[in-house]
Amino acid sequence: MAMKICRVNVEQQTSSCEDVPEPWVRLGGRGLIARILLDEVPPACEPLGPNNKLIFTPGLLVGHMLSSCDRLSIGGKSPLTGGVKESNAGGSTGMALALLGFHALIFEGWPTDSSWWVVVISQDGVRFDPAEDLIGLGVYASAARLIERYGEKVALSLIGPGGEMQLLAAGIQNLDKDRVPSRINARGGLGAVMGSKHIKAVVFDTAGTSKPPIADPAAFKAAQKTFTQALMAHPQTAAYRDYGTAGMARMCNSLGALPTRNFSSGQFESVETISGEHMREALQQRGGASETTHACMAGCTIRCSNVYADPQGKEIVSPLEYETIGLMGSNLGLTDLDDVARLNWQANDLGLDTIDLGAALGVAADAGVLAFGDAQRALELMDEIRAGTPLGRLLGGGAALTGKALGVRRVPVVKNQAISAYDPRAIKGTGVTYATTPQGADHTCGLTIRAKVDHTNPEGQAALSRTAQINMAGYDTLGACIFAGFGFAVVPETIPALINARYGWGVPPDFLQVLGRQTIELEKEFNRRAGFTPADDRLPEWMTQEPLTPTGAVFDVPAEDLDQVHNW
Amino acid sequence: MAMKICRVNVEQQTSSCEDVPEPWVRLGGRGLIARILLDEVPPACEPLGPNNKLIFTPGLLVGHMLSSCDRLSIGGKSPLTGGVKESNAGGSTGMALALLGFHALIFEGWPTDSSWWVVVISQDGVRFDPAEDLIGLGVYASAARLIERYGEKVALSLIGPGGEMQLLAAGIQNLDKDRVPSRINARGGLGAVMGSKHIKAVVFDTAGTSKPPIADPAAFKAAQKTFTQALMAHPQTAAYRDYGTAGMARMCNSLGALPTRNFSSGQFESVETISGEHMREALQQRGGASETTHACMAGCTIRCSNVYADPQGKEIVSPLEYETIGLMGSNLGLTDLDDVARLNWQANDLGLDTIDLGAALGVAADAGVLAFGDAQRALELMDEIRAGTPLGRLLGGGAALTGKALGVRRVPVVKNQAISAYDPRAIKGTGVTYATTPQGADHTCGLTIRAKVDHTNPEGQAALSRTAQINMAGYDTLGACIFAGFGFAVVPETIPALINARYGWGVPPDFLQVLGRQTIELEKEFNRRAGFTPADDRLPEWMTQEPLTPTGAVFDVPAEDLDQVHNW
Repeated sequence: MAMKICRVNVEQQTSSCEDVPEPWVRLGGRGLIARILLDEVPPACEPLGPNNKLIFTPGLLVGHMLSSCDRLSIGGKSPLTGGVKESNAGGSTGMALALLGFHALIFEGWPTDSSWWVVVISQDGVRFDPAEDLIGLGVYASAARLIERYGEKVALSLIGPGGEMQLLAAGIQNLDKDRVPSRINARGGLGAVMGSKHIKAVVFDTAGTSKPPIADPAAFKAAQKTFTQALMAHPQTAAYRDYGTAGMARMCNSLGALPTRNFSSGQFESVETISGEHMREALQQRGGASETTHACMAGCTIRCSNVYADPQGKEIVSPLEYETIGLMGSNLGLTDLDDVARLNWQANDLGLDTIDLGAALGVAADAGVLAFGDAQRALELMDEIRAGTPLGRLLGGGAALTGKALGVRRVPVVKNQAISAYDPRAIKGTGVTYATTPQGADHTCGLTIRAKVDHTNPEGQAALSRTAQINMAGYDTLGACIFAGFGFAVVPETIPALINARYGWGVPPDFLQVLGRQTIELEKEFNRRAGFTPADDRLPEWMTQEPLTPTGAVFDVPAEDLDQVHNW
Repeated sequence: MAMKICRVNVEQQTSSCEDVPEPWVRLGGRGLIARILLDEVPPACEPLGPNNKLIFTPGLLVGHMLSSCDRLSIGGKSPLTGGVKESNAGGSTGMALALLGFHALIFEGWPTDSSWWVVVISQDGVRFDPAEDLIGLGVYASAARLIERYGEKVALSLIGPGGEMQLLAAGIQNLDKDRVPSRINARGGLGAVMGSKHIKAVVFDTAGTSKPPIADPAAFKAAQKTFTQALMAHPQTAAYRDYGTAGMARMCNSLGALPTRNFSSGQFESVETISGEHMREALQQRGGASETTHACMAGCTIRCSNVYADPQGKEIVSPLEYETIGLMGSNLGLTDLDDVARLNWQANDLGLDTIDLGAALGVAADAGVLAFGDAQRALELMDEIRAGTPLGRLLGGGAALTGKALGVRRVPVVKNQAISAYDPRAIKGTGVTYATTPQGADHTCGLTIRAKVDHTNPEGQAALSRTAQINMAGYDTLGACIFAGFGFAVVPETIPALINARYGWGVPPDFLQVLGRQTIELEKEFNRRAGFTPADDRLPEWMTQEPLTPTGAVFDVPAEDLDQVHNW
């Protein structure tokens, strides 16, 4: 069965499938999204208007339970940044797309009335089921009802009230392997795009499907084995298994890069109580639903995820990630991980990006809307979002909108998207990534924290970021998790080996970089046509002026360096 | 006495004067602001941050009570549009600047603490007086207190609570010839820039000054006479004297271009009760404080302004202009001019642009925040602004911010600045102006309504707009009111004659157009460096798709035409 492009028109409620156009064949995930956007979406269109498209696509390696390589990319023109947008997630949806034979699934058109729909996709075709009973329901309750209705084996992509309200920080949630709906295509407001098309959920019923064909199964298996062994042997894999991403809290704090009280400091005096080490210990003591080692996708050998339970062993949220701890913990002056976990659950249930929401709350705290350290007030503000009050809509619109409306200068965004939990003044290579990636501030587009360099020295950071950006754009196109890179970096030859074995192609040894450069070039071209210029490839001015405690660093990578990052 | 450039540093609380640099000499008003911004303000800087400057400058003809030619330009980088900004106003401040010998007055730096200041400028120099007692006070009460403190002869530029809160639709108010503080440099958020520098008011004490010298008084007088006669003889002058700008309501309604219920229609069923004809009749009947024929500047022969009184003859507001009637009247579905006048007073007192505020209220009505036609609720929302609630800050942030936060598609803005009371679908030449002027949507940058063409036909509109834009940029540089053009169009030779007589220069016959083209080129260059591209020179997408009742027109001037407007 050849992979197909499937289109679903929400205005006509029709669908159709077609062969993959030749220029789209050797792309998937992030790279394919950029290509489709350039080919089909007017770059200057309204992101929440009739001409935007919402694109689901698995990466090129998705479909065979390669460890950490079954990720789902969703994309479109971002209502948050106004530019190209791809956001990827783990969970089970990526695999379902591959099983259903979709090279890409493209939602098009605009609803003609106020009704909402569940789009049900199976081998039998596409069906629109009424979704009125789900409207206003949170992600968890909605997912439970959908699972009850469509069975335990379906994959789901759904939005919460945030997406329904077309809030600019709304994402799209997916089930993990345990049917918890918390694997979110978080960034850039794609949940609002889904909401603008009045799709509450997409149900993927894979009954009767089988894995995509492999051209050379023996070669594939051999490469898979080499890759998996390299991944398992990497020391970072073990660290992530023990502490999850939360292990980053101590590291970032020691570098003076942990966002604290709206990025006013890079160290948090209470870092220990929100650290991965503390979390592991607490969860081990609490037992019950607690899991310190949990996989979001079937087949993942890293298992960086967790289930966070309260002192009675009752699950609060799963997972609790470092980004959330940074943005909704230290950034809000919160010292108790239980509070952070509760905020995280609320954000998940609303279907919002915890990074942009956490950053928005930090900005709001600078404006006096809440006090730093006041978890109760922060939780009340989640209710404001749910109620759709003006303040709630602001917070759900992310840090840029909140800052603009409340008149705050210290707003940590690039291209209107929030900077994540690595202060770019203290980790300047990642600052270069934030500034220059076509995606808007996003550490997953090129994190440089593991490089053995002085992260506060501006020299050489652009080169560091360039390499990281190219590799990450490649991984995002393959459907590989950021952590799969630990393995691939050791055995890079397995990337072309896996691709050639699966597809029968003859891709070059540097295929990862070829994909990465191509993807970034496509994205930059879309942004250029949408009106972006080098003036958009900058960190906020205040970060170049306001020294960060305790390093005293400002962001001082020269503009000329930033402008050369993508000149390869 | 030679004209000077005076700089006031709000951080050091110092001032200094210098000779006018040669490239700045033959510019004033709007053109000079563009030149200074290009020379001194980093185009990508934060508009409310330390690197922006607030520039006051009289036009080149200011200082001699030429009819309608003593206007004040204020400029800076706009916090609303992110681009170049000049906004001009009548009243007495322009003349005061000329009397004090300022070619430009530039406020620089950023306050180091939270204290607020009144900057007092006289022949003796510059003084900072504490302004704490004025903070939170509305424009009317503040002005009264300032007049009491500094005398009846001073000119004033001041901000209201809107500017203090750094709301993006905040303007700067000036006294008219009767000391009413309602002559506002309204557009683009310059009041927020003044607020960011913690200047509540600037007091201009002209005691001991005299008019700027005239190189050839006889020639000046002769040209002045010719110009004034032409202006007085023009039929439009008489129409504006009778009906004020409000006379436009019927005209725009008949063209199907009167913004009605958030730009959802171009005709308003109750246009008669908000028309200039109705207003004139009512004010004549009401008497008392009413004035149907009022001059904002000493020496103006047009007297398009008015004093609007209630049925008991008590003044509600002065003036009540067509733009306000369109945006806060028909655009909100309001049928009673008394209500519009009360809203106008509130906006004036808050120090906000009635165009952007009216557009924001229309957008908010589409979002259900108020009902169209509900004046009481609209007035309550003025209290929200005054209280600085999140909703109030949104509305005071203008239509673009309101629409983004509340999730409304029908948002009438270009470059984030609200379209004024001429729907561009029905008056397409003005639509070209809205789209392409570097200022953001602004009818005063090139209104085409008086051209004898089919305004709904897209052909030829770009050329029409080009001519209008060049002329208006020229007038804004001369300090001439938009209506002075009625006279200058008949006797264009008086422009170089007046300039040459005053300055002893030998400017060419087409000096108006030379100034206009030069000004627009400077502005475009600033915007280009700030990150603007042709993608910003577009009307909102929905205006190209949603037909306007009753003409059924959409905005369909081709993008290629828009991109050629400034290629002369």
